[in-house]
Amino acid sequence: MSAENTGTGTGGAQDPALEQLRVARAALTRLMEPSDLAGLALIRAVGPVDALGIVRADIGVPKGLERTITGIMVDAGAAGSGWPGLADALGRWRPRLKDLAPERDLAVIATLGGGLLFPEHPQWPPALADLDLAEPIALWVRSATASLPPLASCVAIVGSRDSTSYGATVTAEMAYALAQRGITIVSGGAFGIDAQAHRAALMSAEPGTLPTIAVMAGGLDRYYPAGNEELLRAIAHQGALVAEVPPGTSSTRYRFLQRNRLIAALSAATVVVEARWRSGALNTAHHAEALGRVVAAVPGSVFSANSAGCHRLLREGAAVCVTDAGDVAELTGASGTALVPEPEQPAAIHDGLSVEDLLLFDALPLAAGTTVEKLSTVAGLAPAAVLAGLGRLELMALAQRGNGLWKRRR
Amino acid sequence: MSAENTGTGTGGAQDPALEQLRVARAALTRLMEPSDLAGLALIRAVGPVDALGIVRADIGVPKGLERTITGIMVDAGAAGSGWPGLADALGRWRPRLKDLAPERDLAVIATLGGGLLFPEHPQWPPALADLDLAEPIALWVRSATASLPPLASCVAIVGSRDSTSYGATVTAEMAYALAQRGITIVSGGAFGIDAQAHRAALMSAEPGTLPTIAVMAGGLDRYYPAGNEELLRAIAHQGALVAEVPPGTSSTRYRFLQRNRLIAALSAATVVVEARWRSGALNTAHHAEALGRVVAAVPGSVFSANSAGCHRLLREGAAVCVTDAGDVAELTGASGTALVPEPEQPAAIHDGLSVEDLLLFDALPLAAGTTVEKLSTVAGLAPAAVLAGLGRLELMALAQRGNGLWKRRR
Repeated sequence: MSAENTGTGTGGAQDPALEQLRVARAALTRLMEPSDLAGLALIRAVGPVDALGIVRADIGVPKGLERTITGIMVDAGAAGSGWPGLADALGRWRPRLKDLAPERDLAVIATLGGGLLFPEHPQWPPALADLDLAEPIALWVRSATASLPPLASCVAIVGSRDSTSYGATVTAEMAYALAQRGITIVSGGAFGIDAQAHRAALMSAEPGTLPTIAVMAGGLDRYYPAGNEELLRAIAHQGALVAEVPPGTSSTRYRFLQRNRLIAALSAATVVVEARWRSGALNTAHHAEALGRVVAAVPGSVFSANSAGCHRLLREGAAVCVTDAGDVAELTGASGTALVPEPEQPAAIHDGLSVEDLLLFDALPLAAGTTVEKLSTVAGLAPAAVLAGLGRLELMALAQRGNGLWKRRR
Repeated sequence: MSAENTGTGTGGAQDPALEQLRVARAALTRLMEPSDLAGLALIRAVGPVDALGIVRADIGVPKGLERTITGIMVDAGAAGSGWPGLADALGRWRPRLKDLAPERDLAVIATLGGGLLFPEHPQWPPALADLDLAEPIALWVRSATASLPPLASCVAIVGSRDSTSYGATVTAEMAYALAQRGITIVSGGAFGIDAQAHRAALMSAEPGTLPTIAVMAGGLDRYYPAGNEELLRAIAHQGALVAEVPPGTSSTRYRFLQRNRLIAALSAATVVVEARWRSGALNTAHHAEALGRVVAAVPGSVFSANSAGCHRLLREGAAVCVTDAGDVAELTGASGTALVPEPEQPAAIHDGLSVEDLLLFDALPLAAGTTVEKLSTVAGLAPAAVLAGLGRLELMALAQRGNGLWKRRR
């Protein structure tokens, strides 16, 4: 994401108000963990600049703020999350003030060819607003394009890290075919299904499209897992790396779980290719379900533990069954149903016959011919109906006559 | 099915009215094809004895009969089936009068140790009434027990004739386990999935239960397909063979399709284990769906053509995903959910932690210990919250203290 394109770089003349928001939000991503609902409510209440000022104690706590925050959390359905009050929240954020250096973080991401997207930014993905209060404070991005693709063009493909060769094959075929249709494949940059999905999308890349987005749980200056460094570097150049935590942040379990909500929110559909009975991919699927996004699962052998999570989703009705890219495209409406050809299977010759004609066709002998009278008995049809039916079957080249006797035409 | 038990045999003193109905219905099964709705409407209008009399021209056509039949067909939603009038229907049935010998047919089935069930019979399966006008005229039965099991105890397992070893294994495990729970396995006696299901049920047979029912498209004096003769003989002895056509009747395509509705109607749930994109098993599944019965499908490899029909059912929402007997038992309510254990997978040590404790656990170093102040920054928690959380994690043996420093406990 170049500074020229998006205004997210550090250099150059910027709208001062936007620049102030950018720095404040960059700072807040370091102070607050993802989905810190009290922090997000504070930002919603007073804006990011004042929110930062309050945490820094540069400005005092406005009268009634506590009640406003509570109201925002109640409205967002987060009242039950045990909001222990602003004092407690400040006690949580302030220990990190000493590490605060948003300009340095913005410089680091610019050095990496990236920038910061945030809700006031014209290129902020509108789909993230569906997260309501859990909408991220900002997104750190390293991208080949100025903006992320619209929701309808994004499909998440997720699954086990310890995928089987079956899962890898399904993933590669699906991601490749979807990317060829201009769909952006969103995943988590992990080993297994994630890596396979990113790789196939990169290979398939159509000119002018963003083939793949990896949503990371840690800072974008790191490559995690290290074994995927080469892949993640390629995604940064040809696709996009995205994170809601600033450079230098490590990946933690909590951040992985929160990251999953971003994968779900950025994608019109989330496809689980392989997942064990308990799996992070199911967490992503449940986020997608909660957001009203399409959730799909790929079936597999009932004897494969790596498909048990997919079958669980299917059984619970939480996911739709998909077997290939065509199924997925149809679900997302990204392509017409014409792209999903019915598997080729020769029509049986008796297809489309009426019940009477089927009864008659069944009754026709294969070898020696038979009489209309006999056919009437065998088929259970009146003689007139037999004659009429024989005429139709003869026209369809299903029956033939010889010496006044009828048999099936081979 | 012995004559003593059911009163369906040919010998012995019988209720004369019931005996008359029995002979009339036996005759009508030869004159009329399965689901001949005009014939069934005639029987509903005047009863089986008079219906036979009318076809035989022993008695005249009562005034208004035509209108009554039309009304019955309209009520049953069969008006669109192109009812061409009673004269036409009589023309269809009468050519078979010359072959009519119901007493001989009843003698044949008695010789085979079987008998006839019919709607007026006390042991007629009430589930068949769900077929409405398509309820069979009668059922020819060869059974080890006096009556067929109730709907709730029957599960149909159906699928491809050219099943894979995957399908055969799933079928055998599922049928065996269900039969062990006292469930009767209903299928069509064909090669492949059907045969596998019947065989596994016979092997598993619990004393006092009817392990399996094969619903045949042709007469019960024949074994079709011939390659399954031994299996079908075993089913006749330990389970039940059932058909709505009399002895001597051949299997036709039309009768196979109609037979499928009986499999669906006799079973609380229909499980499709393997089916191609177009398959007779899907026909059975659609009958079950139309009857409001449970339809289930077993997933498989997306690369297997033999699973494409199952995936189609799942994708269209026509079937529930099942992977084993436990899933099926749960669906039919035949057994409690306690019989479906969650797959064993060790709980992760951090399961069930609150968000704060998870943040703290994530922040704890594995090797060298760290201070509360540092943990406060890393975890993003107030120092007091860190202290409280460390107390909880210590109690859970997840954290340990040494020289005033904290680390994760291995």
